[in-house]
Amino acid sequence: MKGCYEYTIDARDLDYRGRATPSAMIHYILDTAGQDADLNGFGVRDLNVDNCSWVLTRMCVEFHAWPTAGDRFTVRTWVNDVNRMTTTRNMEVSAADGTPIAAAMTQWAVIDIEKRTALDVRARIDYEGRVSNEPSPVSPPMRIRRVSPQQVASHRVAYGDLDFNSHMNSLRYIGLMADMVPLDRYETGRIARVDINFILEAQYGQELTVRYEQQAGESLFEITNASGQALCRATFKWLTVNV
Amino acid sequence: MKGCYEYTIDARDLDYRGRATPSAMIHYILDTAGQDADLNGFGVRDLNVDNCSWVLTRMCVEFHAWPTAGDRFTVRTWVNDVNRMTTTRNMEVSAADGTPIAAAMTQWAVIDIEKRTALDVRARIDYEGRVSNEPSPVSPPMRIRRVSPQQVASHRVAYGDLDFNSHMNSLRYIGLMADMVPLDRYETGRIARVDINFILEAQYGQELTVRYEQQAGESLFEITNASGQALCRATFKWLTVNV
Repeated sequence: MKGCYEYTIDARDLDYRGRATPSAMIHYILDTAGQDADLNGFGVRDLNVDNCSWVLTRMCVEFHAWPTAGDRFTVRTWVNDVNRMTTTRNMEVSAADGTPIAAAMTQWAVIDIEKRTALDVRARIDYEGRVSNEPSPVSPPMRIRRVSPQQVASHRVAYGDLDFNSHMNSLRYIGLMADMVPLDRYETGRIARVDINFILEAQYGQELTVRYEQQAGESLFEITNASGQALCRATFKWLTVNV
Repeated sequence: MKGCYEYTIDARDLDYRGRATPSAMIHYILDTAGQDADLNGFGVRDLNVDNCSWVLTRMCVEFHAWPTAGDRFTVRTWVNDVNRMTTTRNMEVSAADGTPIAAAMTQWAVIDIEKRTALDVRARIDYEGRVSNEPSPVSPPMRIRRVSPQQVASHRVAYGDLDFNSHMNSLRYIGLMADMVPLDRYETGRIARVDINFILEAQYGQELTVRYEQQAGESLFEITNASGQALCRATFKWLTVNV
């Protein structure tokens, strides 16, 4: 029921300060979802047999510390809620000595790959004995409003953005968002919480716009396609650090 | 003298075909240079004490196979040539069963961090007993001509591009180049050799231009800054695959 996965921070996880980037940490957190679902017999490959797949719809992560080069940590993951349309998977990230690093809540839907429509999760997956009653370690991912951007950037979806479903990898959204934030904010603050809403998938060759709005203590982001449809929205909440 | 390092391909290394990307493979190859230099007492941290650092000037990699999800491989690395201005480090990548995957030759200079000038490698580093007479497994990295681009793209150097020297990470150059190549080329061919010349470092906020020229069997790339100075040039040689 509760899987534990171990990771070590390597050179490409680090930013210019020598701290793990938001997309590196979210990579490790999400990696456990794939591994743990595989182990329980309801991974992407199992669902693909029935022409279905998992889609991540919302997530949030609270960060207590940002690891640095060579740091080892464990991600513990468990499913604690299964509804008709979504299933909730939680993660707790701890350093080798037990110090808390992060905690996450992720919400997933099952879709029909061809029709791209949501299916009843419970009808597809045998959760018998695989749902824990341990509560989520963080408050649920928020619904994020449209952004009134102070800055925008554009990005064309290219080879390196695609995952093996040929859609843009969710981690690339996080990377594009983190790139909008000026360096002085990384120097005077640290990200304490990230909320993300995944709305629509981006396709190869699409021209995306990354919209960025900075409020006191909070960065808001929205990625839109050429028709102005929102693909992904997120917020980063910042804590001021004493340098 | 000859270090061996083991790696496993993970989800973020894969492209839309489920094969490792060029930047993922080059990440693993270069990772051994850092680890092996550290182990021999002449890593970046050792050089930093004297206000010096390693700079990668040229490299080439020949690819025999492109790993896929979960593949394990070993990278063996050795230094076999030390001149006044450069040192040559080689790598051989093999699958767990010994099948060759790739072979590389990298050339490095030592610079004074503040003056950004090249120093005599031999005066800085004690290579006694650390140079092998095993020849390089590939022909040396080529000098690459200026590119006459058929296509260009622009990229502003951002947070996620920077390594802990606050310069753009060399792997990001490879990523930007690979993104210029249309997907049908990845579907009908495989990269057999990559040559890269690193010329100038890119700084935060700079507007870069990626210039791409496609010749029969060969892609040429050049990344320039706003003044038109070349920062990096590379070629990908392609072999046609029978699909």
